[in-house]
Amino acid sequence: MASLIEPRVLKGFRDFLPAAEIERRDIVECIEAVFRAFGFAPIDTPALEYTEILLGKGGGETEKQVYRFNDSGGRDVALRFDLTVPFARFAAEHRSELTFPFKRYHIAKVWRGENTQRGRYREFTQCDFDCIGTSSAASDFETLLIMKEALDAAGAGGITIRLNHRGLFNRFLQRIDAGAKSVEILRAVDKLAKIGRDEVLKLLSGELDGKRADSILRYVETTGSWDETLDAMTAVAGGDNPDSQRLRTLRGFMFETGIEDTFVIDPAITRGLDYYTGIVFETLLNDMPSIGSVCSGGRYDNLGGLYCKEALSGVGSSIGLDRLIAAMQATGKTATRETYAELALICVDEGQGGLYQRIAQRFRAGGIPTLVFLEAKKQGAQFAQAEKKGIRWALIPPSASETEADGAPGGLVTLRDLRTRQNSAGLSVNAAIDFLKKTKKNETGTRTGTPD
Amino acid sequence: MASLIEPRVLKGFRDFLPAAEIERRDIVECIEAVFRAFGFAPIDTPALEYTEILLGKGGGETEKQVYRFNDSGGRDVALRFDLTVPFARFAAEHRSELTFPFKRYHIAKVWRGENTQRGRYREFTQCDFDCIGTSSAASDFETLLIMKEALDAAGAGGITIRLNHRGLFNRFLQRIDAGAKSVEILRAVDKLAKIGRDEVLKLLSGELDGKRADSILRYVETTGSWDETLDAMTAVAGGDNPDSQRLRTLRGFMFETGIEDTFVIDPAITRGLDYYTGIVFETLLNDMPSIGSVCSGGRYDNLGGLYCKEALSGVGSSIGLDRLIAAMQATGKTATRETYAELALICVDEGQGGLYQRIAQRFRAGGIPTLVFLEAKKQGAQFAQAEKKGIRWALIPPSASETEADGAPGGLVTLRDLRTRQNSAGLSVNAAIDFLKKTKKNETGTRTGTPD
Repeated sequence: MASLIEPRVLKGFRDFLPAAEIERRDIVECIEAVFRAFGFAPIDTPALEYTEILLGKGGGETEKQVYRFNDSGGRDVALRFDLTVPFARFAAEHRSELTFPFKRYHIAKVWRGENTQRGRYREFTQCDFDCIGTSSAASDFETLLIMKEALDAAGAGGITIRLNHRGLFNRFLQRIDAGAKSVEILRAVDKLAKIGRDEVLKLLSGELDGKRADSILRYVETTGSWDETLDAMTAVAGGDNPDSQRLRTLRGFMFETGIEDTFVIDPAITRGLDYYTGIVFETLLNDMPSIGSVCSGGRYDNLGGLYCKEALSGVGSSIGLDRLIAAMQATGKTATRETYAELALICVDEGQGGLYQRIAQRFRAGGIPTLVFLEAKKQGAQFAQAEKKGIRWALIPPSASETEADGAPGGLVTLRDLRTRQNSAGLSVNAAIDFLKKTKKNETGTRTGTPD
Repeated sequence: MASLIEPRVLKGFRDFLPAAEIERRDIVECIEAVFRAFGFAPIDTPALEYTEILLGKGGGETEKQVYRFNDSGGRDVALRFDLTVPFARFAAEHRSELTFPFKRYHIAKVWRGENTQRGRYREFTQCDFDCIGTSSAASDFETLLIMKEALDAAGAGGITIRLNHRGLFNRFLQRIDAGAKSVEILRAVDKLAKIGRDEVLKLLSGELDGKRADSILRYVETTGSWDETLDAMTAVAGGDNPDSQRLRTLRGFMFETGIEDTFVIDPAITRGLDYYTGIVFETLLNDMPSIGSVCSGGRYDNLGGLYCKEALSGVGSSIGLDRLIAAMQATGKTATRETYAELALICVDEGQGGLYQRIAQRFRAGGIPTLVFLEAKKQGAQFAQAEKKGIRWALIPPSASETEADGAPGGLVTLRDLRTRQNSAGLSVNAAIDFLKKTKKNETGTRTGTPD
């Protein structure tokens, strides 16, 4: 035998075994169901794009992390590092084919060659949704509502969405004559939670005199109720204006839908990225705020600016699936099963493989996913294997192929509850299906949103 | 403004707009539901792996097509070009964590830098399922049954699965003393449908004398009923043997489950790949056989041989999603819609964004995906946009926020059928939900498998 190759994955990349993958699918499907229920439509884009498209005129921090190479045709290509840039390219390229406002979602892998410390991976999944082509308050609000609904549906537990408005912040900066440094200031403030007050003050003092640096810190540390905070922010921004009005409108919509408790106004939320111009937001899990934001985004007024002359304004948000799942695992909010099957059909006689599938097909048609065991091992071993996979029920099939009155495969079967180890013998296939359907109906726990 | 970057994708790569992506999702979800119903569990593996893992000791044809590069850490890496090789690595790496027989599916993108002629793409999706750790006939049969069920569920229309057995073919080759050339012969025969009889004869004659080349061609051209063909193949292989017996057992299972009409035995099916050792199969669409096989695979006895000493035997199959969809589109078997929403909530007053979402949430909770329009454009324009997206119903909301007796948002609404252009005015929200639920229940067409 030739020498073996060590089976291993690249650092920062992961295999997902069935239990982990089913857990991910369950959560993604809950999130996706919410996107769909709101009429957001899925799109997909290539994993690989021209580097020029992804990095634009020079990528800064991002550039170092990108998986970039020349393909065999000599093209300079790269793996996408987020879903926002490909969406900007997509929207610019297909703008004549889309109906605006355009609501889309995109759940897909992205790749970054980051350091792999602390649960950071080089391949990870983002769940993005955006609505472009409208600057309406209704669109901002829908984004916030979907965030809450999607995270509720995923089973994330209590969340707090921290909301701010870039425009309002900029008005304040203009007013203290610090508008020219707004990008640097926003980036410094964005690091507040990570590096602390003193370090941010140092960063700000590098850009501005001490008095203004200090007033910026006082601004972002404004506390109080929503109204108190907003009033204070509005006052230092020079009084009521369209941006403060937008936050008031959104607050009214929150009360109308009964979701006001989920939101706080936080002048320290800036999001580091240049392109946000309106509301910006981050989401913390109440049980584990330390893991950081699991869903962030904001409003932008020129998404496709690198690729087309038309301004594409919109609002969008992105759920960091891997971080969300890590937090849910840490706080005991996930369940484990290795299969979707709910019934295991025990193999008594390998020669009856056709009959067993015929019986299993009837359970499947009745909505009971059924795993057929293929080898006639000892029954105890088969029960144990089914249990290990998280299957609750086992079916011991009849020994020969009789036919029921309705033409169905026949003989009487035994249904075993692997949880209680109780057998129910002498059931017809139909009776066993009915019993499982009824049990399932009674026991179904649901993960759904919480509309009023 | 700086110069623009032309928004475009790489040759052989594609964007999927909502209608195309929903169509793909619909089909994938049907296929996946079948995999799950049979107790096959999902796994996932990295898009990027060590090149050594993917190409083994030298990749031949494949090597030229692989997207391969050095990452920033200097590692020789490549994008996966199929899902079988990563599964072999996965199974070898995790064999102590898996319970055998292990049934898994994996639906994911793969990348090959092929020529992009005739509907071949450089990024495409495979839907693989395998059962490893058993050599039972029941496992072979389950694979064939799932193929039929999955393609039925996807709406592929009539299919024919062409089945052969590598072992039986090898017995025949041994018998005519051509076993040493079996790999070359199998590859030549595999091209029969593509290059025709004369060219295959030429290829065979390059390996063997004319008499044996001719007898091989006669072998693969054996025709007749299943039993006649199998009898003829068995005879020239030296009489009854475990491989011919396997085909007879599978035939019995097919009759037992009533799916015998879907299968033909075809001695010309060899699958070019070295690793198959048992049954091999291809699937043609009855309405469009010319597009080639949409689902192929077979049994292998040493999947993980490059990576571990334990032999991992199994059987697996792969649905080529892009080819399947191309054929379904060409034969009019797909439908088009741009959203999952079934109801559009018309915007009359932008200041009522909270109320509109509150009403929409009630429809969503009732199982009616609802798209909320965000801007108070003319009603006719909103109706037209809903219709264009494939939404059947529009809801004209009440003008103010009254409250119904049950605490629900109130006022009377108007439901409009965009197909018939009929309005039903003066409905409570509850009455509108009940009406839509009832209509939906009565009209739901189902795409399901066809168990007996």
